[in-house]
Amino acid sequence: MQPLIEYEQSQGVVREVFDDIRATRKTDEINNFWKALANHPPTLQRTWATLKEVMAGSGELDPLVRELIYIAVSVTNGCNYCIASHRAAAVSKGMTDAMYGELMSIVGVANMTNRLANGFQVPIDDKFK
Amino acid sequence: MQPLIEYEQSQGVVREVFDDIRATRKTDEINNFWKALANHPPTLQRTWATLKEVMAGSGELDPLVRELIYIAVSVTNGCNYCIASHRAAAVSKGMTDAMYGELMSIVGVANMTNRLANGFQVPIDDKFK
Amino acid sequence: MQPLIEYEQSQGVVREVFDDIRATRKTDEINNFWKALANHPPTLQRTWATLKEVMAGSGELDPLVRELIYIAVSVTNGCNYCIASHRAAAVSKGMTDAMYGELMSIVGVANMTNRLANGFQVPIDDKFK
Amino acid sequence: MQPLIEYEQSQGVVREVFDDIRATRKTDEINNFWKALANHPPTLQRTWATLKEVMAGSGELDPLVRELIYIAVSVTNGCNYCIASHRAAAVSKGMTDAMYGELMSIVGVANMTNRLANGFQVPIDDKFK
Amino acid sequence: MQPLIEYEQSQGVVREVFDDIRATRKTDEINNFWKALANHPPTLQRTWATLKEVMAGSGELDPLVRELIYIAVSVTNGCNYCIASHRAAAVSKGMTDAMYGELMSIVGVANMTNRLANGFQVPIDDKFK
Amino acid sequence: MQPLIEYEQSQGVVREVFDDIRATRKTDEINNFWKALANHPPTLQRTWATLKEVMAGSGELDPLVRELIYIAVSVTNGCNYCIASHRAAAVSKGMTDAMYGELMSIVGVANMTNRLANGFQVPIDDKFK
Repeated sequence: MQPLIEYEQSQGVVREVFDDIRATRKTDEINNFWKALANHPPTLQRTWATLKEVMAGSGELDPLVRELIYIAVSVTNGCNYCIASHRAAAVSKGMTDAMYGELMSIVGVANMTNRLANGFQVPIDDKFK
Repeated sequence: MQPLIEYEQSQGVVREVFDDIRATRKTDEINNFWKALANHPPTLQRTWATLKEVMAGSGELDPLVRELIYIAVSVTNGCNYCIASHRAAAVSKGMTDAMYGELMSIVGVANMTNRLANGFQVPIDDKFK
Repeated sequence: MQPLIEYEQSQGVVREVFDDIRATRKTDEINNFWKALANHPPTLQRTWATLKEVMAGSGELDPLVRELIYIAVSVTNGCNYCIASHRAAAVSKGMTDAMYGELMSIVGVANMTNRLANGFQVPIDDKFK
Repeated sequence: MQPLIEYEQSQGVVREVFDDIRATRKTDEINNFWKALANHPPTLQRTWATLKEVMAGSGELDPLVRELIYIAVSVTNGCNYCIASHRAAAVSKGMTDAMYGELMSIVGVANMTNRLANGFQVPIDDKFK
Repeated sequence: MQPLIEYEQSQGVVREVFDDIRATRKTDEINNFWKALANHPPTLQRTWATLKEVMAGSGELDPLVRELIYIAVSVTNGCNYCIASHRAAAVSKGMTDAMYGELMSIVGVANMTNRLANGFQVPIDDKFK
Repeated sequence: MQPLIEYEQSQGVVREVFDDIRATRKTDEINNFWKALANHPPTLQRTWATLKEVMAGSGELDPLVRELIYIAVSVTNGCNYCIASHRAAAVSKGMTDAMYGELMSIVGVANMTNRLANGFQVPIDDKFK
């Protein structure tokens, strides 16, 4: 496993990104995800820029809805790190336990019906084309 | 491929479910998905009951958000039928083209960062446990 | 797309495998899957040998159960070719429409509960370790 | 992570489901999966009803075959909780070590050939349509 | 389905990206992927910038190897569009039929052994931690 | 979980495979993957023969490129064991940290664009057919 790069060790591009993460999130803490990506500075820089824009930039979907969508994908893919970190992010944006339960039930049902559509080889209705 | 069971051919449990679909959706049209599932009545009945409750029952998440979550899963799994049919459902509930674009960008980014978390073998932060 | 290699064009290792497919399956027809793999003879040879052994060799699971398992994987992965071809194989080994419906309902439910286990971050019970 | 709801703490719908789980499985033990789902009672209730019907209701597939299919999906999706718990369930229904080995070899081969079909872009044979 | 935005219709940011695609790829043709993404300009712009940097920017991996990796992911996910378009890209960078066959055999085997590792619940060796 | 079969306990076919692993890899150590598969000798034998041929046999792709492809699949599928063991194998064949970072960025981007292609329902360009 690669080492996690701590803020104190960081320099150059990595330090700049870490500073932006701190400023944007208004906390000195930097999640392990970013400390790990810091092992490859171009990936760190590009990923942070993309995530910041997509999850927190201007748009029609509100920040909590964006987190719910993000979690739906992570649960479908089974990414434990992503589930844990974005669940915390969603809670900080107002997600209740009931909302999480509803989210899970939708994700579960979609994963089920996706396979029923596959298995019954359902042709797409003309009206959906 | 299994035949699609048309409303006119349906009987018993299948007819009951088809009638409920028509009543709930306020249209005589029945999507191919349900016509295909009608080949196995218990699956049709159970799936419809579950979907109706999860996607349209009472809860804290509004109907459009539920559709966005459903699409996020379907795009991640690559279920073409589900993408086409639920995209139409989301549009009928108010989804704009801009919202769909934002949804896709979040789904894309989550699928990317899920793999970065896997590949960099990122340990879960204590605060997320 | 690669061309499909027809029996008449085949030579060397490809011809040998094609002859074994014909003999094993007791039919002159060769499925497109094998005609496509024939573009890379070592993959054709290895894949046929493995599939023959795993799906038709001696063992405790009967041939129909093996097909059901194979379909469960293919539906989960959304492989349309594999669903279509192995559904036909299962029918030839005795699968009824009711069995296919039951198979789909199990595959659907497992895909749902897999995600519920992910999303609720369920710790493994000590007794299952 | 959500707390696990123990039987002693359970009430209302959750208690009813827990009682039915105990009665159906003829044991006082309740798996962590259900204790976790109890955080969202409607999901608990619906999931248990579905699973009970699909995995233990009447049908043509015997209970052990149903478990093998369930495991095939869970291994494909990489759901560790589901693999561990349903492997135990399958053993209790008569699965031998040899059967598990055969199951794994089929799941492995199907995952391989699913990708070969994708990668070689194999067109579906007319006879399978 | 969303309309494809043709070069002649494009304006603003979309036109700028389309011009960069033409200049970078040294051809007037623009693939459907970019014409579809043009329905949401920020996604088009960000995705093109990322792809250009990752697939064609400076780095230690040569361009053909990058395409092989890209195809490996697309075949695993079953993305038909991505397989078709990047296979063509790989051929233009020197991929032979034999190399494609080898690539497929590795992708197939990895998908198989990934599931064997899941199913046999193999603990990670200390030396790999 | 199944027990790991140690070299000292191994006999018959398992011992033969273990000896071949030792000879091929020029080390007495046998990875947990093989010790686990030894619980089902035919799967052990077939998997080792396939992996040896595909990953180390003659061919146009060099051994390091093969490992990169293998890792790309394993990261996409989220197989922690496979990521850890093949990352070590790749390092032993010359993979640098920068190469691993580039590999991750390609895998991440491919997983993102695969979903964008799904979600925007992009039709395959005629020239790619």
